[in-house]
Amino acid sequence: MGNIVKQVAVLGSTGSIGRQALEVISALPHRFGIIGLAAGKNTDLLARQINQFQPRFVHYQDTKAQPRLTAAECEFLSLEEMAGHPEADIVVMATSGKWGLSPTLAAVRAGKRVALANKESLVMAGEIITKEAKLNGAQIMPIDSEHSAIWQCLEGETQKATQLILTASGGPFLHYSPAQLAEVTVEQALKHPSWRMGKKVTIDSATLMNKGLEVIEAHWLFDMPFDNIKVLIHPQSIVHSMVEFIDGSVKAQLGYPDMRLPIQYALSYPERLANPQLPRLDWESIKKLTFEPPDLDTFPCLKLAIEAGRKGGTYPAVLCAADEAAVELFLAQGIKFTDIARLVGQALEEHQATSHPTLEEIMAADAWAREKVMPLVGRDNP
Amino acid sequence: MGNIVKQVAVLGSTGSIGRQALEVISALPHRFGIIGLAAGKNTDLLARQINQFQPRFVHYQDTKAQPRLTAAECEFLSLEEMAGHPEADIVVMATSGKWGLSPTLAAVRAGKRVALANKESLVMAGEIITKEAKLNGAQIMPIDSEHSAIWQCLEGETQKATQLILTASGGPFLHYSPAQLAEVTVEQALKHPSWRMGKKVTIDSATLMNKGLEVIEAHWLFDMPFDNIKVLIHPQSIVHSMVEFIDGSVKAQLGYPDMRLPIQYALSYPERLANPQLPRLDWESIKKLTFEPPDLDTFPCLKLAIEAGRKGGTYPAVLCAADEAAVELFLAQGIKFTDIARLVGQALEEHQATSHPTLEEIMAADAWAREKVMPLVGRDNP
Repeated sequence: MGNIVKQVAVLGSTGSIGRQALEVISALPHRFGIIGLAAGKNTDLLARQINQFQPRFVHYQDTKAQPRLTAAECEFLSLEEMAGHPEADIVVMATSGKWGLSPTLAAVRAGKRVALANKESLVMAGEIITKEAKLNGAQIMPIDSEHSAIWQCLEGETQKATQLILTASGGPFLHYSPAQLAEVTVEQALKHPSWRMGKKVTIDSATLMNKGLEVIEAHWLFDMPFDNIKVLIHPQSIVHSMVEFIDGSVKAQLGYPDMRLPIQYALSYPERLANPQLPRLDWESIKKLTFEPPDLDTFPCLKLAIEAGRKGGTYPAVLCAADEAAVELFLAQGIKFTDIARLVGQALEEHQATSHPTLEEIMAADAWAREKVMPLVGRDNP
Repeated sequence: MGNIVKQVAVLGSTGSIGRQALEVISALPHRFGIIGLAAGKNTDLLARQINQFQPRFVHYQDTKAQPRLTAAECEFLSLEEMAGHPEADIVVMATSGKWGLSPTLAAVRAGKRVALANKESLVMAGEIITKEAKLNGAQIMPIDSEHSAIWQCLEGETQKATQLILTASGGPFLHYSPAQLAEVTVEQALKHPSWRMGKKVTIDSATLMNKGLEVIEAHWLFDMPFDNIKVLIHPQSIVHSMVEFIDGSVKAQLGYPDMRLPIQYALSYPERLANPQLPRLDWESIKKLTFEPPDLDTFPCLKLAIEAGRKGGTYPAVLCAADEAAVELFLAQGIKFTDIARLVGQALEEHQATSHPTLEEIMAADAWAREKVMPLVGRDNP
């Protein structure tokens, strides 16, 4: 690879993954530079980031913030322009939600290395994204502890894996009964036992929807049938995932729950880089690692997601959109925790799916599902 | 690799590893054939193996058995001739003890793939063996669950590991006090909690000497300083070893304790082959994996081995020979279990070592150590 400085565009730079990506990049100035920063509405933080990193390109949603942000003499680009810009070597896709789809597609079509944290890209449009990546020689490197773990375990293997084993912490409500689960508060749901993440993904971790979305991502990323993807609850979040091979051998990747490792690996692959920020496992303190099967009856979101993934077409888009709407409602205290799965299930049941959908059909399914979920609870507007 | 049948010479075919190697090879007749079999004194079993596999070459120690064994029209070769024979593609080195050194060297000098189970080769003569392997393009593939695990975890990585973590079951006497340990019987020591193995290695597992020898092997196999090799007690014997990389990421290889997997991997590498004999991990039954540091005061053999490895020269040969003699004495009920470490320690202390020894000097150190240990207990002859 040599020691050329790679130019990185970080889309979603003010979110949890974006901020950690900037931390990693700051620690490795001899290897990575920032060419572009894109954020949504957190323009205060974006202004500070622009000041620190002096990117050539910026993007922001809040147009009122323009005078302050352009002071640094950056060129304003659309997300798609930035993601596909010839001078960007690596695109960190850390925007959340369906807004990530179109820029991910732009990056993939431009043949970039895409360090992908945006779940929706592969869940909603996995068929399109992976096909375009192949066509254009783009490399999708997952920023996700689970998929990064699988990637690391597959590295150097000459044959396909026979099984992927995604680990899940189980979230804050592991071993809760359905009755207990119906009464949990937003505050409780936002307290993840092992990972620090954004609100949406924290709630998705508590419902296990997050793991379901990861199963769909794994299906697309590693071209693996759903029957060969297993989920295993592992509350310590040390084993990030495992891969089983044809001879029965299993490889696992381990580390503390810290997104900076998968972020850095996605940037530096196939190399690994020394970075004093990254923690090393202390085996004096790791006494035991436990594993158990997930409880699909108490946490139906996992089952719903895998079913939607198997059915394919626009079902995963409906899954994502309905879940996002339902989680918003829960966060706004409009519905109970257990209503999330109920609303998502209802939307999936009523959906008239399209096979091999276009991006427009995916977006239409998304809009349909949001419209579906909102009235179900009396049109709350969170 | 194509699907050419590789010809395998199995040296030590009647021992535990040799028999399991033949099991693996029998299950994969489209990939592996037997060109040679060599055994020590178990000529009954060797006769049956010759009958079954019809090898072209044989070797045996018990000359009285000759008429029965040559009936199959095999050519008799020395161990060295067989190990270096141009028609052998792979040499499984499963003879035990120092008798493995010279044939291992012959195989390595002939540039073979050496599937190496013989611990003494690398422990006693690691410098010579690895140097000759490099010079002659030989490939040493470890047959050992720990080193095979490390090999698998390193596969595809572009950089050296920062730490190797060898796991150890802890043996049947884990958590015993020194006083309890002094009273254990041969019968107790031969009951290994997780692995089925030969007697010598089972006792070595109980004293943790086996792990110490593996640390020395790892040092040579992976060119790793002793400071960067860690031992971790893991009683379930599911995680076979781990590797830490420069970015803090750790990879582990897992499987049930079954030597057939590392044997097959050493034969088939870089491919993995489907083999219905090989068990798959059942995650419904694996509830927890535990880890703890080894107790070096109660199990001093581990410390003695690592010290001998660090000092190098003829010390590891003395370690091996003194241990082999002491274990024989223990098995013959001539000494206590805790005397093994005491006798080995005494031999190491009194040894006048040679640096960068020749094979002859290594053998002389071996003979010296045996002579040293035997009189210490009144010249028992087990």
